[in-house]
Amino acid sequence: MNPTTKQQLMGVSTATLCTALFKRGLHHQFIQGVLPLNPGLPNMVGEAYTLRYMPAREDLNTIEVFKNREHPQRKAVEECPPGAVFVIDSRKDARAASAGGILVTRLMKRGVAGIVTDGGFRDSPDIARLPFPVYHQRPAAPTNLTVHQAIDINVPIGCGDAPVFPGDVVVGDGEGVVVIPAHLADEVAAEAVEMTVFEDFVQEKVMEGRSILGLYPPTDEQSRVDFAAWRRAKGR
Amino acid sequence: MNPTTKQQLMGVSTATLCTALFKRGLHHQFIQGVLPLNPGLPNMVGEAYTLRYMPAREDLNTIEVFKNREHPQRKAVEECPPGAVFVIDSRKDARAASAGGILVTRLMKRGVAGIVTDGGFRDSPDIARLPFPVYHQRPAAPTNLTVHQAIDINVPIGCGDAPVFPGDVVVGDGEGVVVIPAHLADEVAAEAVEMTVFEDFVQEKVMEGRSILGLYPPTDEQSRVDFAAWRRAKGR
Amino acid sequence: MNPTTKQQLMGVSTATLCTALFKRGLHHQFIQGVLPLNPGLPNMVGEAYTLRYMPAREDLNTIEVFKNREHPQRKAVEECPPGAVFVIDSRKDARAASAGGILVTRLMKRGVAGIVTDGGFRDSPDIARLPFPVYHQRPAAPTNLTVHQAIDINVPIGCGDAPVFPGDVVVGDGEGVVVIPAHLADEVAAEAVEMTVFEDFVQEKVMEGRSILGLYPPTDEQSRVDFAAWRRAKGR
Amino acid sequence: MNPTTKQQLMGVSTATLCTALFKRGLHHQFIQGVLPLNPGLPNMVGEAYTLRYMPAREDLNTIEVFKNREHPQRKAVEECPPGAVFVIDSRKDARAASAGGILVTRLMKRGVAGIVTDGGFRDSPDIARLPFPVYHQRPAAPTNLTVHQAIDINVPIGCGDAPVFPGDVVVGDGEGVVVIPAHLADEVAAEAVEMTVFEDFVQEKVMEGRSILGLYPPTDEQSRVDFAAWRRAKGR
Amino acid sequence: MNPTTKQQLMGVSTATLCTALFKRGLHHQFIQGVLPLNPGLPNMVGEAYTLRYMPAREDLNTIEVFKNREHPQRKAVEECPPGAVFVIDSRKDARAASAGGILVTRLMKRGVAGIVTDGGFRDSPDIARLPFPVYHQRPAAPTNLTVHQAIDINVPIGCGDAPVFPGDVVVGDGEGVVVIPAHLADEVAAEAVEMTVFEDFVQEKVMEGRSILGLYPPTDEQSRVDFAAWRRAKGR
Amino acid sequence: MNPTTKQQLMGVSTATLCTALFKRGLHHQFIQGVLPLNPGLPNMVGEAYTLRYMPAREDLNTIEVFKNREHPQRKAVEECPPGAVFVIDSRKDARAASAGGILVTRLMKRGVAGIVTDGGFRDSPDIARLPFPVYHQRPAAPTNLTVHQAIDINVPIGCGDAPVFPGDVVVGDGEGVVVIPAHLADEVAAEAVEMTVFEDFVQEKVMEGRSILGLYPPTDEQSRVDFAAWRRAKGR
Repeated sequence: MNPTTKQQLMGVSTATLCTALFKRGLHHQFIQGVLPLNPGLPNMVGEAYTLRYMPAREDLNTIEVFKNREHPQRKAVEECPPGAVFVIDSRKDARAASAGGILVTRLMKRGVAGIVTDGGFRDSPDIARLPFPVYHQRPAAPTNLTVHQAIDINVPIGCGDAPVFPGDVVVGDGEGVVVIPAHLADEVAAEAVEMTVFEDFVQEKVMEGRSILGLYPPTDEQSRVDFAAWRRAKGR
Repeated sequence: MNPTTKQQLMGVSTATLCTALFKRGLHHQFIQGVLPLNPGLPNMVGEAYTLRYMPAREDLNTIEVFKNREHPQRKAVEECPPGAVFVIDSRKDARAASAGGILVTRLMKRGVAGIVTDGGFRDSPDIARLPFPVYHQRPAAPTNLTVHQAIDINVPIGCGDAPVFPGDVVVGDGEGVVVIPAHLADEVAAEAVEMTVFEDFVQEKVMEGRSILGLYPPTDEQSRVDFAAWRRAKGR
Repeated sequence: MNPTTKQQLMGVSTATLCTALFKRGLHHQFIQGVLPLNPGLPNMVGEAYTLRYMPAREDLNTIEVFKNREHPQRKAVEECPPGAVFVIDSRKDARAASAGGILVTRLMKRGVAGIVTDGGFRDSPDIARLPFPVYHQRPAAPTNLTVHQAIDINVPIGCGDAPVFPGDVVVGDGEGVVVIPAHLADEVAAEAVEMTVFEDFVQEKVMEGRSILGLYPPTDEQSRVDFAAWRRAKGR
Repeated sequence: MNPTTKQQLMGVSTATLCTALFKRGLHHQFIQGVLPLNPGLPNMVGEAYTLRYMPAREDLNTIEVFKNREHPQRKAVEECPPGAVFVIDSRKDARAASAGGILVTRLMKRGVAGIVTDGGFRDSPDIARLPFPVYHQRPAAPTNLTVHQAIDINVPIGCGDAPVFPGDVVVGDGEGVVVIPAHLADEVAAEAVEMTVFEDFVQEKVMEGRSILGLYPPTDEQSRVDFAAWRRAKGR
Repeated sequence: MNPTTKQQLMGVSTATLCTALFKRGLHHQFIQGVLPLNPGLPNMVGEAYTLRYMPAREDLNTIEVFKNREHPQRKAVEECPPGAVFVIDSRKDARAASAGGILVTRLMKRGVAGIVTDGGFRDSPDIARLPFPVYHQRPAAPTNLTVHQAIDINVPIGCGDAPVFPGDVVVGDGEGVVVIPAHLADEVAAEAVEMTVFEDFVQEKVMEGRSILGLYPPTDEQSRVDFAAWRRAKGR
Repeated sequence: MNPTTKQQLMGVSTATLCTALFKRGLHHQFIQGVLPLNPGLPNMVGEAYTLRYMPAREDLNTIEVFKNREHPQRKAVEECPPGAVFVIDSRKDARAASAGGILVTRLMKRGVAGIVTDGGFRDSPDIARLPFPVYHQRPAAPTNLTVHQAIDINVPIGCGDAPVFPGDVVVGDGEGVVVIPAHLADEVAAEAVEMTVFEDFVQEKVMEGRSILGLYPPTDEQSRVDFAAWRRAKGR
């Protein structure tokens, strides 16, 4: 990812990004139903690296399977590139864990940017104490083997009803996670920065008591004049 | 609303109000599935002012529609009376926002008492920092246009399976939101205050180790005697 | 319950216990969809004492029913043994309360170990301030009579899709609640302690930067050697 | 059950019965979400005999358990009184069967009036060919042991969110199943017969082209006159 | 509606219409989750006339309310124009009826084209015998007053997550119901007729054993030649 | 597949197969929530050939994509081996079609054994008239592009919460569809035939009025004697 793009995405919200994507005809890029375990962190930004789960068949999912170094869950945790976001398709099923505290810690130590599942994590109280962005649906103490079988690494997946292709740019904040198609990342990031400047201006004016009519969007000429002045004054 | 009623409703819980309504045969006045974004605030109390969403049709919900000052969402935000509670029927669909930080801030600055949706809000981390009661189902970053079209202002609606008529008295606390039919507000508020005094007495006695049998409800004569003495002592 | 078992269960997680149960072919012992109201407490450990709700029939569930000292909800609250965990089958329906602040306080004062419902509690902001483990799905202000009729005390029930037999050992932590069949409690507790020692070792090594391959599980001989040394050093 | 009542209930619809119960303040007596497997049959009428399932624990639900003649599912099938309706609380879970073709056939041969579950039956294509009223949510091929453990016979239960007490009068038609509290059966049956006569009159008039205004309900005097004449002419 | 358009819509499927709408950027016009009660009929085609339900408040929904000739449900049934389709917003809640056999019969006798609810109908076995297109989610014996309050006539609504504006053109077949925005009805109908001719050709060729590659869509020149010849031969 | 196995599977039910799999510790092989469109056909038996859908991204799913002969949906339809069962992972989402009448007809003509999706099919009324086994959740008129993007051919998938590996043996009857792991197909088929013979005997005896106790399972010696005699008499 372009370092400027990354820096820009660190400073904008998933809400603003969703609007920028909406303008381009993309309506389903927000991962539905996931929340951060540890909401106070900076934005999570990185390229998607994916893991796909399918429903577990009992004979293929005994506790012994983790002894295999090629088990896709363990392999993916060791191979996910630093700076990437690890995105898991758990079929929105949080009855068993997508992963637990040890694997999440390993990803953090390896320099991965964050992890998202549309299922749940075990050891969630421990995970919530890590300085690492982690998003899930709800805590899920049972081992993944109970419900999930890891089957594919870095293929296109669904996560929370959003399409996720390896290499898409994934951004998370206190509200949730959005997936930006790789080829749009630069332009969407740039536009989101501009939108954010304007929204900061609007928010300040609204806090001062101004009406949103004519201001948001700026259909009054005066709003555009004021915004230009405000930008100059703020140096943004 | 009667100022005494408003004051009384500031000091009772939604749980107590639900019981007072239950006694009157009203079982569905609690808005199901909404939580406060910022739980530590005083009660939210005000008369309902409503906005109704219908499913969005794509050609009628481009980003341009907000340039229209008559767009019902924007119009409603500017016209909702100070002191009212803004209640949104989002058909329990939180895949897209019912509103965002700027509009919520505008409502706060206009003196509105609070806002409730059975969908979700975008910019929820910002909203959670406002000293303003806001209730929703879960964060929803995508713009409302993605899923919702604002269609009617101040008509009777459903919100979280509760019936809401304009002018109904809406009360929110750390637990959720209850809707009191307008004609019952005074009597329900007065009864809830009485119930709260008694429940405070019971809670104190239970903390001291007393059994609930004969005390809650006070089927033992002694419970009634003790309560009368306690009220006198406490001046309530 | 064996006091050693109880002490052991105070120091292990529900996630670890779920894995120990998984190894024994038990896949459904985690109570799905419940969260602690007050997450910072020590583990909840006790034997299950159960209450079963059925759907409420209106003529049998007027506010007057609580005047009956034999009402199963009230009776159960007074009879639940100190040290037990009070587990309620609310059919996963949180539209009305399973109980409220006063009854929960009474259970706490009586020395009960904690309370779990797969529905919701009313007075949840008050309950969240008690130094007492309480688990539910979401807040529910309406009185239980609205939806639930208490019908049976201390019978086998379902709670969050888990089977619960009176006397089963119930353990809760910041993640949720697990149900251990009574006859397995001692062996599962002992095994979970051993697993926890090993996982603490692994977590420490992963924090130091070691790969999980060969370590978790310890398929490398070196991992077993290191663990043995670590145990000796730590005196565990 | 009073034989007259039974005969009356054979000739009225569940829709009419629901309205008669609604007038008495009972809103939840219709079993939600079940359909007849074989819709062309006469009404099912009988007193409720119940079976309660809880979630299955794997060690208690091996295929061997059916060798026990006291297994509650098998015992209930042999003990359910002729003329009764067998009602099963499957917690609305149709992932595994509540029963199968052989047990259903046995109930039919024993003279039972019908069977209802809020889960599903296996062997449903075979069951659909029996001249016997059977209601469920959807087909469910897996054996009940997969998900359900039979635990109680003839206790109060929930079925499709309706409260069911042993001895309640259960009526099924092509639309679904309604539960009439035992003490109301005679009066509700009598009223439903009267309502049905009137609705047959209305339906005939509407088919002839008359407006429903003033006719349904008969607020026009002429409607009442016409109805009286029609009754005389029809001998009803 | 243009009579040609109506005639064209009688001969095409909802599936084909959905594709024609998809090409115009409209993705949500199919009413989700409704099925015909009586599947063998000709298409239902007419302009939408709507009824909106909100959640019922008990004091406003006693059985007496139907004595009021202005009750919106009854008024709407008498005022819906012949040839229109009566579309009901029941908030996808089928726990109580949207209407019953008598009202549906009245609509049929008044020359209405059909009726759709995203809830359920009572008297469904009777309705299934009428030569009249009726679509719902599932049978619902309880009177509408139990859950629904009729509140608005002929306003924009949602039905099965589709946006419905009065005057939109509604088409139903054996698969379900689609809503065509009024201003697109003529062009969509004409295009759907053309698409249907081509699909009939393709279906015939596929039945003869031809591959879909190059044929559907007709990317092979030969496919276009064959289709032209087939049209001439068939006179379509 | 072994021809004997195939023939055996043509004569047993999915219910019996589920029990045989249950005995082997496999609890999740029944595809939940799908029904046959055309229930009167012989069993569907074949090896799984799979198609995986992910959520559709709008820019990658315009109507033009079908012009690409390599589009996975079209390619899979032409490449699925005769005799196989085409199984589609639609993420249990029936808001848009998994396929339509033309593609289903093409599969039939190519000698495929049947088709299953955990979503829905368009053109379902036409499909229901084909002499070809087709299973889905409910009709879905919108084109697959609306919600689904075909992404992988013949990889392991989930379908209705069941794990499906390419080559697994898939069996459908009037009740639904079960997935038999490839390596168990022969032994499960053989055992199911034996179970079916016994169940036919039991069903006959129950129809004659015999109790199930001691008969089903045959814990009475007499039951085993009678069965042996019956088998001889029937030549089974």
